[in-house]
Amino acid sequence: MDDIKIVLSEAEIPTHWYNIAADLPTPMPPPLGPDGHPIGADALSAIFPQALIEQEMSSQRWIAIPEPVRDIYRLWRPAPLFRAHHLEQALATPARIYYKYEGGSPAGSHKPNTAVAQAYYNQQEGIRRLTTETGAGQWGSSIALAGAMFNLTVRVYMVRVSYQQKPFRRSMMETWGAQVFSSPSVETATGRAALERDPETPGSLGLAISEAVEDAASRADSHYALGSVLNHVVLHQTVIGLEARAQFNKIGVMPDVVIACCGGGSNFGGTAFPFLMDKAAGREVRLVAVEPDSCPTLTKGRYAYDHGDSACLTPLLPMYSLGHDFIPPGIHAGGLRYHGDSPLVSHLYHLGLIEAVAVPQLATFQAGVTFARAEGILPAPESNHAIRVAIDEALRCKESGEAKTIFFTLSGHGHFDMASYDRYFAGQLEDYVYPESDIAAALAGLRAVS
Amino acid sequence: MDDIKIVLSEAEIPTHWYNIAADLPTPMPPPLGPDGHPIGADALSAIFPQALIEQEMSSQRWIAIPEPVRDIYRLWRPAPLFRAHHLEQALATPARIYYKYEGGSPAGSHKPNTAVAQAYYNQQEGIRRLTTETGAGQWGSSIALAGAMFNLTVRVYMVRVSYQQKPFRRSMMETWGAQVFSSPSVETATGRAALERDPETPGSLGLAISEAVEDAASRADSHYALGSVLNHVVLHQTVIGLEARAQFNKIGVMPDVVIACCGGGSNFGGTAFPFLMDKAAGREVRLVAVEPDSCPTLTKGRYAYDHGDSACLTPLLPMYSLGHDFIPPGIHAGGLRYHGDSPLVSHLYHLGLIEAVAVPQLATFQAGVTFARAEGILPAPESNHAIRVAIDEALRCKESGEAKTIFFTLSGHGHFDMASYDRYFAGQLEDYVYPESDIAAALAGLRAVS
Repeated sequence: MDDIKIVLSEAEIPTHWYNIAADLPTPMPPPLGPDGHPIGADALSAIFPQALIEQEMSSQRWIAIPEPVRDIYRLWRPAPLFRAHHLEQALATPARIYYKYEGGSPAGSHKPNTAVAQAYYNQQEGIRRLTTETGAGQWGSSIALAGAMFNLTVRVYMVRVSYQQKPFRRSMMETWGAQVFSSPSVETATGRAALERDPETPGSLGLAISEAVEDAASRADSHYALGSVLNHVVLHQTVIGLEARAQFNKIGVMPDVVIACCGGGSNFGGTAFPFLMDKAAGREVRLVAVEPDSCPTLTKGRYAYDHGDSACLTPLLPMYSLGHDFIPPGIHAGGLRYHGDSPLVSHLYHLGLIEAVAVPQLATFQAGVTFARAEGILPAPESNHAIRVAIDEALRCKESGEAKTIFFTLSGHGHFDMASYDRYFAGQLEDYVYPESDIAAALAGLRAVS
Repeated sequence: MDDIKIVLSEAEIPTHWYNIAADLPTPMPPPLGPDGHPIGADALSAIFPQALIEQEMSSQRWIAIPEPVRDIYRLWRPAPLFRAHHLEQALATPARIYYKYEGGSPAGSHKPNTAVAQAYYNQQEGIRRLTTETGAGQWGSSIALAGAMFNLTVRVYMVRVSYQQKPFRRSMMETWGAQVFSSPSVETATGRAALERDPETPGSLGLAISEAVEDAASRADSHYALGSVLNHVVLHQTVIGLEARAQFNKIGVMPDVVIACCGGGSNFGGTAFPFLMDKAAGREVRLVAVEPDSCPTLTKGRYAYDHGDSACLTPLLPMYSLGHDFIPPGIHAGGLRYHGDSPLVSHLYHLGLIEAVAVPQLATFQAGVTFARAEGILPAPESNHAIRVAIDEALRCKESGEAKTIFFTLSGHGHFDMASYDRYFAGQLEDYVYPESDIAAALAGLRAVS
């Protein structure tokens, strides 16, 4: 079979990231400061390097990928595009299913695509220390890897309950040389105050963000790194969609539908935005963001100005949100448990250029198991959300007889998530839909994007 | 940098495995039956398909890889060959270090190279069920993956203590559809008898092998699969060395030393045997098998006829052995805890064509951490043994000023082994050298290969 795997040469690793900000039909609403006025670059310079702030604000269409970043990319890029022949057969669908596999990176997911770039720019501007927060540890391990590549000290504030219950991701970060602190920690004033209030607190992501930002802002040699949501993060992830587009060009095929899971939005944006160029050129292509039923930011949230963190330390971002106090239930796709969404993804969704769908947890695991048995690769629970929707599309094609081309990104492998599969097989996982009334209450206080 | 990653095209995935049996300076001693006489193919036909028995006995130099096997290989092959520039810099060595990365397979190690082939041949001969044993689960998960690819029912007998303590590998096998039994189980007469003797037994690999073989031999639709040691298993793994050799040819370089870790011997044999062709052609190349100090089969064992299992069910194999009753301490490189070694590897070692070195556990983890921080990929504890010796070679080059070319196989990633790294960082791991007197006692009863 000729199109089992569509490969690019090393020279075909993208030389530039694609900045969708250059091609927006209407401009993005700006982020706002605590005073309600748009913030400028200076508000970010305490915690981000100039190069990333420029990317965050840029409307230049193509932004060059530095060679040292491309050199690290070569450890796992170009990432393969696979035709899912066996899955098609298992589903008896006339659809053609393709997937881009991002699990080959040393951290096992797409996250290093931006972590490596962020570490590089910080190192170039003389920064020696990077701070970040992590929940389950996916982002923390990616920035730990990137820090090791560019000789930066990485300090990760890991939510205490995860620090205690998930030692494996912590060990991974430590193997790459990162310092990992159980948050709240004694390292920061915020952490010390929290510990004084409640020595037994399990911690929270909001608190960990506060600690990481305080740590970065308090020292001139330190900056902060974020794993999703922001424009420059989504920008770096466009290597996924750009490579996929080049791979489809190679076989003279273009997808009818592009699917990716969506938490903070960088995997979805990175996958889908390059295909918006085709849509702008008049080609019919559907772009579908998949989120969990239990954290339905795009499908049930409100397009509003909200903080990125529960502690209200970040600027107000124009985004779909369930409210910064929203606490999703403990679903097993930790990477999709975020109350907000990338402002770029939110803007495009608001404009009707992309679609969103929410899926229940059990159906995603069922899809992941079907995929693993057919195709071999064992997906992360986050990726199972995209697989669920790809399978549903393929089954609709079976009904209708259409031979659509379906494409999704398999954002990571599930080798760190076997405890979740274990619970799934043991019948211990549940579907959880957040009550509509609770969502309405959470949204009531948000200021709409005008 | 031009040689960060040396890639092959899909067409360059080997079309044939290399059978070293065709090029042995003296023939292999035969395996012996319980009566002390050489066994024939018929003795194996109850548990192996004809195609694999033929490969086991073959002296044909090149054996074609079936296209359906190559199609599955394409999920992760050709595997990349990397130049370890950052590690060289970290060591300040004039040596050039290259490594072949086999951790990109869906199971995370080199094991699927043979699992996929074994599943294919069994399916071709009408087999519907495959049985095997597994300790920590690396082999069990690879055969579960392969069974899913060829629609075989896979039944894995997993040593009870691992079944209870390592649920993640079990979940992985179940995700691929395998049936996993805690061994001893009620599925077999052997298992029931063992449970009757001691309902609380933790189980053993020897017992699990007995169960898997009994299960396979008792049904016409079932066969047994083994993950290392045997000739056909090593044969399948030669895709590693053949690809590496083609990659070195591409850049006009050949290694001065080839290094791989050695448990049952398939990773080492698969890596090194193709380079024996160069050695036979007069090119100077050292081939080094690395084993743990705590299970020093080649370096301290005896070249003798011994059983492959502790229950003495297998034929007597001519191999270096520490005695089939040898119980290595609980080192964290589970894949290297085997009392014997591949008869092919043993024969070549006996002839002086390959070298062996034993290394202590702590030094291997230290090497793995150095590697991860320099190169990004986080290695399995087994692979750390090869890295240790590669680093030691590179440091010797630093002393001598020689610019040797060092090559090793990185047989798998360590994403399932973070508990071991965790214990390493916590100072809970120890070096363990098996007392010489105990080894002498264990070897006393073995019948030497004449």
